[in-house]
Amino acid sequence: MVVTDTIELDTQGRADMLNITGAVAESVKACGIKSGIVTIFCPGSTSAITTIEYESGALSDLKRTFDDIAPPDADYAHNQRWGDGNGHSHVRAALLGPSLTVPFLDGELLLGTWQQITYCDFDNRPRSRRLVLQILGD
Amino acid sequence: MVVTDTIELDTQGRADMLNITGAVAESVKACGIKSGIVTIFCPGSTSAITTIEYESGALSDLKRTFDDIAPPDADYAHNQRWGDGNGHSHVRAALLGPSLTVPFLDGELLLGTWQQITYCDFDNRPRSRRLVLQILGD
Amino acid sequence: MVVTDTIELDTQGRADMLNITGAVAESVKACGIKSGIVTIFCPGSTSAITTIEYESGALSDLKRTFDDIAPPDADYAHNQRWGDGNGHSHVRAALLGPSLTVPFLDGELLLGTWQQITYCDFDNRPRSRRLVLQILGD
Repeated sequence: MVVTDTIELDTQGRADMLNITGAVAESVKACGIKSGIVTIFCPGSTSAITTIEYESGALSDLKRTFDDIAPPDADYAHNQRWGDGNGHSHVRAALLGPSLTVPFLDGELLLGTWQQITYCDFDNRPRSRRLVLQILGD
Repeated sequence: MVVTDTIELDTQGRADMLNITGAVAESVKACGIKSGIVTIFCPGSTSAITTIEYESGALSDLKRTFDDIAPPDADYAHNQRWGDGNGHSHVRAALLGPSLTVPFLDGELLLGTWQQITYCDFDNRPRSRRLVLQILGD
Repeated sequence: MVVTDTIELDTQGRADMLNITGAVAESVKACGIKSGIVTIFCPGSTSAITTIEYESGALSDLKRTFDDIAPPDADYAHNQRWGDGNGHSHVRAALLGPSLTVPFLDGELLLGTWQQITYCDFDNRPRSRRLVLQILGD
């Protein structure tokens, strides 16, 4: 069985990090599949998805690490070609990755207690986003 | 068809890297599904999973890279809030990611010859861990 | 339903980045499964897969970031043990990861408009590669 769902989000960009655990859990619970996997996918090349303990300290530490790895104000060939100033967003999104697959059992995501599914919008401006959830199982 | 299994591990933390290929391969062989995918998932926010050639040189190179990206003794907002000293562990785990999906055919994982599934425990102390294997296929 | 397919590629190595979106899309369209997920997997420990806007600027920015994170000419314990000079390739491949899962619906990959599935060969010489596509769904 396969069920496709979506999550709509408004973000601030600039490494805005949003906790989407509740929305994913609801979708899985409502879909009628008892056990399987949910793939959360970001259609786009300037945002990504991972898990983290969703508290302000860890979030700001992760943002600072991305500022070190791909600073917004460094020279990017992407920016020289396109002038949109989000070269760092593309690098960060490619590194972190657009796809996360999470198992569930009896309708419950098998996450750790302090582990939240977190969407990271690295673009350099506010965006409206639609994420895809593809749920497979029995 | 969906089969859920677990792997239990005792780790030393501090970027301890464990080769779990054999355990995953056994679980896939025993589960009764011939072809499909296995998602290996770390429930928790201070460990992650990837593949690497599991030899001491490459492992120490990867550890040193994580020491560069997120040094244990840098200032972390997580540590200031919670005092548990594992801010770097959260950053590393979020970067590497908690989920890996590997295909298999006729009960055999389709890994490269020198490619091993490797669990990385970035926490700052020994831990007992339980990983989830979610196996889907025919 | 499960369908296994492969993609064969000749690469230049040295962070050669190849757009495999067309090949993945064709395979999904031809496989007879309408909706589900495709896992693209790199069997090997010196290459990896992600998505990016496949234009020369963003590609060169991503390459430079990997040159910063794991420079080819740094000291690697892997190189000291094995003498093959690709210690940086192993580190990069482990960081980026060998597996990507993409959802599809009605035979179409649910990618963003400027998001391409991109295979990154980090080895230090030209290689012939075979990637695995594992397609699951209804």
